[in-house]
Amino acid sequence: MNEPGSHADRMARAALTWLAEPGNRAVWTLVQQAGAPAALDRLLAGDVPDRWLRSAISARSAAGDAREVAAEAMRLAEEAGARLVVPADAEWPARVDTLAALEIDSGMRVNRDTRPPLCFWVRGDLPLGPTLERSVAIVGARASTGYGTHVTNELAYGLAERGWTVVSGGAYGIDAAAHRATLAANGATVSVLACGVDRPYPVTNSEMFAQIAERGLLISEWPPGAEPLRHRFLIRNRVIAAATAGTVVVEAAARSGATQTMSRVLALNRPGMVVPGPVTSAMSVGCHELLRKYPTARLVTSVADVLEEVGLIGEYLEPEPRGREHARDRLDEQSALILEALPRRGTVTPEDLAAAARLELRTVLRRLSLLEAAGLVLRTETGIMLTPRGGQPPGNRHSNG
Amino acid sequence: MNEPGSHADRMARAALTWLAEPGNRAVWTLVQQAGAPAALDRLLAGDVPDRWLRSAISARSAAGDAREVAAEAMRLAEEAGARLVVPADAEWPARVDTLAALEIDSGMRVNRDTRPPLCFWVRGDLPLGPTLERSVAIVGARASTGYGTHVTNELAYGLAERGWTVVSGGAYGIDAAAHRATLAANGATVSVLACGVDRPYPVTNSEMFAQIAERGLLISEWPPGAEPLRHRFLIRNRVIAAATAGTVVVEAAARSGATQTMSRVLALNRPGMVVPGPVTSAMSVGCHELLRKYPTARLVTSVADVLEEVGLIGEYLEPEPRGREHARDRLDEQSALILEALPRRGTVTPEDLAAAARLELRTVLRRLSLLEAAGLVLRTETGIMLTPRGGQPPGNRHSNG
Repeated sequence: MNEPGSHADRMARAALTWLAEPGNRAVWTLVQQAGAPAALDRLLAGDVPDRWLRSAISARSAAGDAREVAAEAMRLAEEAGARLVVPADAEWPARVDTLAALEIDSGMRVNRDTRPPLCFWVRGDLPLGPTLERSVAIVGARASTGYGTHVTNELAYGLAERGWTVVSGGAYGIDAAAHRATLAANGATVSVLACGVDRPYPVTNSEMFAQIAERGLLISEWPPGAEPLRHRFLIRNRVIAAATAGTVVVEAAARSGATQTMSRVLALNRPGMVVPGPVTSAMSVGCHELLRKYPTARLVTSVADVLEEVGLIGEYLEPEPRGREHARDRLDEQSALILEALPRRGTVTPEDLAAAARLELRTVLRRLSLLEAAGLVLRTETGIMLTPRGGQPPGNRHSNG
Repeated sequence: MNEPGSHADRMARAALTWLAEPGNRAVWTLVQQAGAPAALDRLLAGDVPDRWLRSAISARSAAGDAREVAAEAMRLAEEAGARLVVPADAEWPARVDTLAALEIDSGMRVNRDTRPPLCFWVRGDLPLGPTLERSVAIVGARASTGYGTHVTNELAYGLAERGWTVVSGGAYGIDAAAHRATLAANGATVSVLACGVDRPYPVTNSEMFAQIAERGLLISEWPPGAEPLRHRFLIRNRVIAAATAGTVVVEAAARSGATQTMSRVLALNRPGMVVPGPVTSAMSVGCHELLRKYPTARLVTSVADVLEEVGLIGEYLEPEPRGREHARDRLDEQSALILEALPRRGTVTPEDLAAAARLELRTVLRRLSLLEAAGLVLRTETGIMLTPRGGQPPGNRHSNG
C-alpha cells in the first residue's frame, strides 16, 4: 500500500510538492529515509527539525489541507491530460537523481535546496525518461537579438534532425526559439516549467505550449494550478541542468539566470556550453562572463561542437582527452560501475551483473541498452560481454563515435 | 674588437641575418658559443654540422659576399634613418631572449627555428627596449570586418591612452587598424616587419608606415632591402609573441597565422588573448578555434579584460588565482630570482643582489625599476629592500594593482 509507486506514494509526493518548494533538502532526505507517506505525516505533524521549514509548512497548511490539495491537483491534471510520474515509474528520468550529490558552495538557500525532484507532472504522450536520455538544453535571454534567435534556430533544428531532444524553459526569446525550431524539425522538445502544466507561462506562448503538449512534453515539479512565482525559475533551473546530457547558453545579459544554471551544469560534471557573440552586444555579455569565469565551460559555435561534447559516446565518456581524471569524472557513474563489474573475458547474465555492480536490475538493463548503442558492450545468447572498446581503461575510450 | 657590441659584432650579426633566416637554431647556438664574428667565419667556411643549413648558406653565398652585403645594408639603413640594435645595446628588448627556451612540439622547421633575434634594424627615435616593456600585440585578419576594425580601434585606443605600446605586424585589416588607432591616441606603436625597414610592406600602407617611423618604431630582423617573402611572416610572428607582455587576436579566419602566433605566445607563458565574435562570421572562426583549442587562451572583450591579463602587476604576476603553480609559471624569471634573492629584512646593494641572484648587474638594475614601479621593492639610501607586498609568497601577490 505504502510502497514506492503505490497510490499512497503518489498522493504523498503530490502533496509534498505543494507543501514545500521542490528541492528542499530536509523534505527530500525525510522521503528517502521514511518514504513519502510517512514523510508527509511527520511534516504535517510539525515533526521537523528545520525551524524555517516547519514555519513554512504551517503557513502553507493554514491555506488548505495538503491531501485535499493533492487530490484536487490530480483532478486538474486529469482534466489537462497530464499524469504524475514518480521515481518508481519506468519512465522516471534517472539522470535527475544525480542532484542528490550536488553541492554548490554558497550561503543561499536556492543553492542548498537542490535535491532531486519528488515527482513530475507531465503533459504529452512521449515517455519522460527515454525522451530525456539523448537531450540537450538550450537556454538564454528573454530579450534575445536576431543573432541569438538565428543561432538558436540552427542549433535546435540541427540537434532535432539528429534525433536529439531539445529541452528549454518555455520563456520568451531563446527558450521559445529553441522549442519552435525543434517543432519545425519534427523533433522532440521538452519544456520544463516553473508553474502548473495546465497553465504554462508566459501565456503569450500558449499556441507553442499547445504544440509542445501535442508533440513533445510539458513538465513541472509544481502541481497543476501552481503559479510561476519568481523564485521558482531558479529552483526549476537545476532540473534543466540535471535532466539533460548538456546545456547550451546562447545569449545572456550580464549576471543573468544563465550563470546560475551553468553553475549547476558544471557542478554536475555535465558539459556546459556557451555560444559567444559580438563583444559589442549586451546580450552576449553574460555568455562571455561565463566563458571567462568557468574554465570548464566550453565555447561552442555549431551543432558539431555541441555533439562533440554530448555525442553518443560523449554522453558517457569524455570526447577529447583533457586529462584522465576528468574523463573518469564525466563517465556516468552507473555505466562505470557496470563496465567495471563486467568480466574481462566471457559473458555474464544481467542478474549476476546487477549483483556484481550492486545496482538494481532495472537500472542495469536501462544502462546496458545505452552501453550497447555506444559499442561498449554486446548482448549475446549466453549473456552480456565487453567489446574491445568497452574493455579499455576509461582514459582511452574517447577515440571515435 | 670582437666584443659584444663592437663594430665586428654588429657587422657579423648583420651579415648572419642575411646569410640564414632569423631564428635558426644552429646559427643562434653557434653565436652564443663562439660570438657572432667567429660564428660568421665558421658558417662561411662551411664548418656547419647541419647539412640543410650548410647548403642554404652556400646557395646564399653564391649570390653575394655576406660581409659586403652587410656593409651595403648598413649604408641603406643610414639612408633610411635606421639603426642596428644588438643584444649588447642598452635598448635591447630583453624579453625576446626568452625565445631561447621556447620549444614547440612539431616536426616543422618554422617551429624548430624559433631562437631569439641576433639583431634588430630599427627606424624611429624611441628606445626599443623601454618602448616594448609595457606593450601589447594586437593582431588579426587582413580581411577584417567592420566589427573587427571597431573592436581593434577600441582596444588599441584604450591601451594607448593608458600608456601601453601597441605592437602589430603592419598588415591590412586588424594590424593596420591597431597601428592607426594608437597613432590617433598619440600612443606609441611598433610595427614588426618581415622585410627591410626601408621598404615596409604592404606599400599601400606607406603613409601609415611613415607616421609610425615618425612617432613610433618600424623594426625588422631582416636587413634593409630584404623582401617580404611568404615564410618570413611566420618567422616574424615569434618576435611579436616574445617582445610583448601579451597578445590579442581580434579576428582570424579558420586555420590562419593567428593560430601559429598564439601557440608561441602560450608556449612562452605570456597572456594569449582572443576576442570572440558572431559565430556566423567567417572572420571569427579562427578566434573561436583558438579558444576551443587552447585551454589557457583567454577570452577578452574590453580594454579592462586585457589590462587584467597584462596590467602593471600582471606583467610579472598572475592577476587572478588560477592555481598557485600557474602563478609561479607566469612570474618573469629574472624578477622572481631577484625577489627571492632579496633579504626578508633590511637592504642590499644592487651589486650584492646581482651576485645573490646570479644575474648581470645591468639585468638587475633594469628589473628593479619595474619591480619598484610594481610596488614590490623600494630603493632607499642604504640599498634595495622588499616592500610588504614584495615579501609575500608568489601565490598571494596578485591582489590589486
